[in-house]
Amino acid sequence: MTIKIGILGYGNLGKGVECAIKQNDDMELAAVFTRRDPASVKIQTEGVPVYSVEDAIRHKDEIDVLILCGGSATDLPVQTPEYAKHFNVVDSFDTHANIPTHFANVDAAAKEAGKVGIISVGWDPGMFSLNRLYANCILVDGKDYTFWGKGVSQGHSDAVRRVNGVANAKQYTVPVPAALESVRNGENPELTTREKHTRECFVVAEEGADKEQIVKDIVTMPNYFSEYDTTVNFITEEELQTNHSGIPHGGFVIRSGKTGWNGENNHIIEYSLKLDSNPEFTTCVLIAYARAAYRLNKEGQNGAKTVFDIAPAYLSSKSGEELRAHLL
Amino acid sequence: MTIKIGILGYGNLGKGVECAIKQNDDMELAAVFTRRDPASVKIQTEGVPVYSVEDAIRHKDEIDVLILCGGSATDLPVQTPEYAKHFNVVDSFDTHANIPTHFANVDAAAKEAGKVGIISVGWDPGMFSLNRLYANCILVDGKDYTFWGKGVSQGHSDAVRRVNGVANAKQYTVPVPAALESVRNGENPELTTREKHTRECFVVAEEGADKEQIVKDIVTMPNYFSEYDTTVNFITEEELQTNHSGIPHGGFVIRSGKTGWNGENNHIIEYSLKLDSNPEFTTCVLIAYARAAYRLNKEGQNGAKTVFDIAPAYLSSKSGEELRAHLL
Repeated sequence: MTIKIGILGYGNLGKGVECAIKQNDDMELAAVFTRRDPASVKIQTEGVPVYSVEDAIRHKDEIDVLILCGGSATDLPVQTPEYAKHFNVVDSFDTHANIPTHFANVDAAAKEAGKVGIISVGWDPGMFSLNRLYANCILVDGKDYTFWGKGVSQGHSDAVRRVNGVANAKQYTVPVPAALESVRNGENPELTTREKHTRECFVVAEEGADKEQIVKDIVTMPNYFSEYDTTVNFITEEELQTNHSGIPHGGFVIRSGKTGWNGENNHIIEYSLKLDSNPEFTTCVLIAYARAAYRLNKEGQNGAKTVFDIAPAYLSSKSGEELRAHLL
Repeated sequence: MTIKIGILGYGNLGKGVECAIKQNDDMELAAVFTRRDPASVKIQTEGVPVYSVEDAIRHKDEIDVLILCGGSATDLPVQTPEYAKHFNVVDSFDTHANIPTHFANVDAAAKEAGKVGIISVGWDPGMFSLNRLYANCILVDGKDYTFWGKGVSQGHSDAVRRVNGVANAKQYTVPVPAALESVRNGENPELTTREKHTRECFVVAEEGADKEQIVKDIVTMPNYFSEYDTTVNFITEEELQTNHSGIPHGGFVIRSGKTGWNGENNHIIEYSLKLDSNPEFTTCVLIAYARAAYRLNKEGQNGAKTVFDIAPAYLSSKSGEELRAHLL
């Protein structure tokens, strides 16, 4: 018997979930729900229906876990608690500051319905959070560092595109190699924002635009760029499409800590990701936690959970015996 | 109320546990049990008793979790099931091939006693296993690599010391940089034993020993060195004590995998450790899982468990709310 997955929202994340299901033999895609006209949405999996999001609840008995593929700003705060009343759900809610509220809302809805809702699944929050937690529990006397990139920041790319005279743009966040090295060497540096990351912009200017002014407007932009060393490269639309159409990302979570009766020994725990496709990797994590949601609910559990609350074995389709024999 | 920890065996691991307890405010060292004459064992913590191992069971009500600090070859296969009849226990059993049997033995004893026994805790098995599991669940279509070092291998150092004409020796296992780079670049190489690690020996020769013969005996030694490129450096006993008295170790767990409808995107997950003291780091992991053993048992759970079976939040002294607010 396979786990029947529903996808709500068929953007980059929804498409990634569809690809991830194809790699997991114990799962099948049961339906895609969209806010667009279902007839206009063409999915890749043969024979799977696309329904209007309005009809989702009517199909609840056909779905074991519904994966919510909307955005964190306005979609998920509403959708996850709403659908947790009817489905086991998993989302990738990533607005760190609002996680406590979101957790409480999903918890109340899921508990009342007897469903499981796993929130904030992905890589940050998600795998990076897990690695921060494990490393903090092991190296009690230590210091955490998180570096992001090299990767595309959607928010910063959007900000550049809003600058006067910019036709198109892509922004990369890049960790500073010297800062990474210092952390890895156990030097426990205090790093400013500027010392941790640089920002690289690839900009297509509108014809006749004042490039000098564009550079000035970007590098001095508060919140987004003014605290960073930013480089701006002007390229053609063709170059942008050819060399910068991917959505790579990644980063590093490092904890440096001391042990010994007098703190005489130093240790470095480092976790890093190098991802060709940010949304596809995120959805691989979502799918693994969808399996956990299904199994936990079968065991009678309910309520909101995060990656912190779930024993790793629940993510795997293999038995405890197999895992102990081959991966321990 | 603090968690009362007992240490059984006061070698490198036992001493490490003692240091780790000092860093964890919610724990206290309740007693050390030794096979030696207790009067001959001087510990660092003021006011804590040292008892003979013969008396351990008599003190079971004073101990919440007993950490077994013996060796995997002969101590733990007997001790862990034996003490799981009376205590919540944690061990660092690391003979991979015998884990299923050890698990079954501890499970039976702990279930009958209503205690929790967490086995094979440390970094490999332990944190490396966890990272293999998470990475396998996320990147289903991929390939695993584990590299060890640079670090001291106790078994290989012992093997060198048994060679004719060798007075003392230390052996380092070193990952081959080119192999690591190839894996990180997503090239998915098939690596032979020789291509993954080199071995570096620092040898103090006995006076008048035939050094050429020593080198030959080491590099051709089956199982230990014949499959590796091994370098042998002759040094003095003073140099050995000054430059090679530590017990550093570490390594890398890497999974390289593909996603996308046609496997078109590649991803690298890498976890690495750089440890000044192998036993002290291992004991920091043991202590975190001792907290989990205590809490799980308080909740009414019993039986054998591994790092795969334990939700990460159990390792932390912080509440779910605190973890979600600050680490997620």
